[in-house]
Amino acid sequence: MSSRIDRVMAALGERGLKQMLVTDPRSIYYMTGISNHPGERFYAFLMRAEGGHVLFANRLFNIPDNPYEMVWYTDTDPVMDYVSEYLDKSAVLGVDKDLKARFLLPLMERGAAAGFVNASLAVDLTRGIKDAEEQEKMRVSSLANDAVMAQLPALIHEGVTEKEVADEMLALYKAQGCTRYAFPPIVSFGANAADPHHGPDGTVLKAGDVVLFDIGGVKDDYCSDMTRTFVYKEASEQNREIYELVRRANEAAEALIRPGVPICALDKAARDLITEAGYGPNFNHRLGHFIGLDGHEFGDVSLTNETLAEPGMIFSIEPGIYLPGETGVRIEDLVLVTKDGVEILNHYSKELTVIE
Amino acid sequence: MSSRIDRVMAALGERGLKQMLVTDPRSIYYMTGISNHPGERFYAFLMRAEGGHVLFANRLFNIPDNPYEMVWYTDTDPVMDYVSEYLDKSAVLGVDKDLKARFLLPLMERGAAAGFVNASLAVDLTRGIKDAEEQEKMRVSSLANDAVMAQLPALIHEGVTEKEVADEMLALYKAQGCTRYAFPPIVSFGANAADPHHGPDGTVLKAGDVVLFDIGGVKDDYCSDMTRTFVYKEASEQNREIYELVRRANEAAEALIRPGVPICALDKAARDLITEAGYGPNFNHRLGHFIGLDGHEFGDVSLTNETLAEPGMIFSIEPGIYLPGETGVRIEDLVLVTKDGVEILNHYSKELTVIE
Repeated sequence: MSSRIDRVMAALGERGLKQMLVTDPRSIYYMTGISNHPGERFYAFLMRAEGGHVLFANRLFNIPDNPYEMVWYTDTDPVMDYVSEYLDKSAVLGVDKDLKARFLLPLMERGAAAGFVNASLAVDLTRGIKDAEEQEKMRVSSLANDAVMAQLPALIHEGVTEKEVADEMLALYKAQGCTRYAFPPIVSFGANAADPHHGPDGTVLKAGDVVLFDIGGVKDDYCSDMTRTFVYKEASEQNREIYELVRRANEAAEALIRPGVPICALDKAARDLITEAGYGPNFNHRLGHFIGLDGHEFGDVSLTNETLAEPGMIFSIEPGIYLPGETGVRIEDLVLVTKDGVEILNHYSKELTVIE
Repeated sequence: MSSRIDRVMAALGERGLKQMLVTDPRSIYYMTGISNHPGERFYAFLMRAEGGHVLFANRLFNIPDNPYEMVWYTDTDPVMDYVSEYLDKSAVLGVDKDLKARFLLPLMERGAAAGFVNASLAVDLTRGIKDAEEQEKMRVSSLANDAVMAQLPALIHEGVTEKEVADEMLALYKAQGCTRYAFPPIVSFGANAADPHHGPDGTVLKAGDVVLFDIGGVKDDYCSDMTRTFVYKEASEQNREIYELVRRANEAAEALIRPGVPICALDKAARDLITEAGYGPNFNHRLGHFIGLDGHEFGDVSLTNETLAEPGMIFSIEPGIYLPGETGVRIEDLVLVTKDGVEILNHYSKELTVIE
């Protein structure tokens, strides 16, 4: 844990910052091991190059003993005054990207720092490089996700609805030792698969439909996220064509991954393949996103991210082709950048599978 | 819906504001009926006294046709530039309390407005007064919560753990037509009840334990929230004493509710009763919170809220006494302020009940 704080402090130093207020509970957990769900109440970790780090917490929170200076407040206390007292007014304050206006504006009004900058990258880029312990937890979490995916085709039968299938899943994740979903599962039949964010509804399965599962759980605090697309009873020419295209796009991007490759080159490789086949406008989102303690973490796998891949990065590779009113296919793995290449964290088959 | 927007615009006008950026998806739903889960992507409703209202949305979002000007962006577009173009740079911009630093700071850097103020109250106080349609939904939602509570004592038996009981609840809510929990259910046995935010764990029930349930579901988008504390097998003198005290505090506060009463007087009535009996330090949180589309909405029922109660307000009344290492009791109802008094939205008995 302390090495994580050291890495963040070094990143702050590189940005010329001596103090930063971190409010994302997951970032605070990442750096301190202290887990807390503050709801709408103020909760922050103040990192200071001089003077030590300070944790601000409501007395209602159940915070374990820890090596940081604790500042407790109650619901009726002027907590932003307390924070101001700990800030160096002559220095710029870094804040994280999620700091809410109702906390940021009062600090500005109090002149609590010489300036306020979004220094989230100091934390977020550090979180973007998973250490060995995190890599192992991500591996284990994705294995659980593979195991859940392997049980889903058996839930598919004549007359079933998306919602009925989705309602079975939480028990499958719990049986794998997951505490909860990483995100509400996506189960899309037929034309519903053309909406990448479709929520499971009463749509009834029919022969010839694609069956798309975009699912993930949380195991030992780390998130999984995988998509597979099946076909029910029969695979139309159209579905076969776009399926193979998406699979090739997924594999082309994954094959490129190694330290030093610009992240944007991965998106480009997958997108070029799809565009050359005439489906460019039907792949209307980025190729992927970083993931870890949060299901979506800082870091796009997109055409605009020129960052070079580094060992320890974990992100999704999830190309898709969406034909509104007709059908859709997406295939997604999580991948870990290794010292000399890539480790695909998902193992479930990517061959086109017809569920009978 | 349009009358809700009118009420918010009037509240902005009273604050001398001509433009406001609303980013809370639930507030946008409240005003427009458009439901969306933007995740970390930018999603905002710009309200303008002149020029009409504008909705900013990522092309990935599934936004139904609506009467507002739509500004669509993709993951690689400079969306904060787009927002700036729609703002009146010569006027102050109201923002809501949840606007994140990563959006607020770039608008400031662009000089996109003459100033930035937290104008959340314009939306939040409007949301705090439920209209007739919302009142009915809150009534129905709390009836479902009563029905779930009524089934919980049957889940309590020798050897059961908190977690086993909690794991049964989602199905009970779904059977009542709820889509999800309003918040993860709290099930606390014995000394665990002394932590108001205890999460269900492997603690095994034993005779003499209190059994505290703090539970709520979401039905037709509106949240319920109720707490009842039972006793298993036998009620100790201590548990009887603090139970009756908490029940009297709950009822004393509820009896005072009518339009014109300062909200803080409700907290004081409950707190004075508990303090006079010597347990003041053991009631370590506010008496309640507002609730509606969100489980916790703006508005405390606390000693510092001098707002006068108004018809249409809905909030919780939830006094508690917590004895660390020993036991805890909390009793919570939702209440609706009516034209001439109060309607208690929960009907489940508050008599001390021993589960055999």
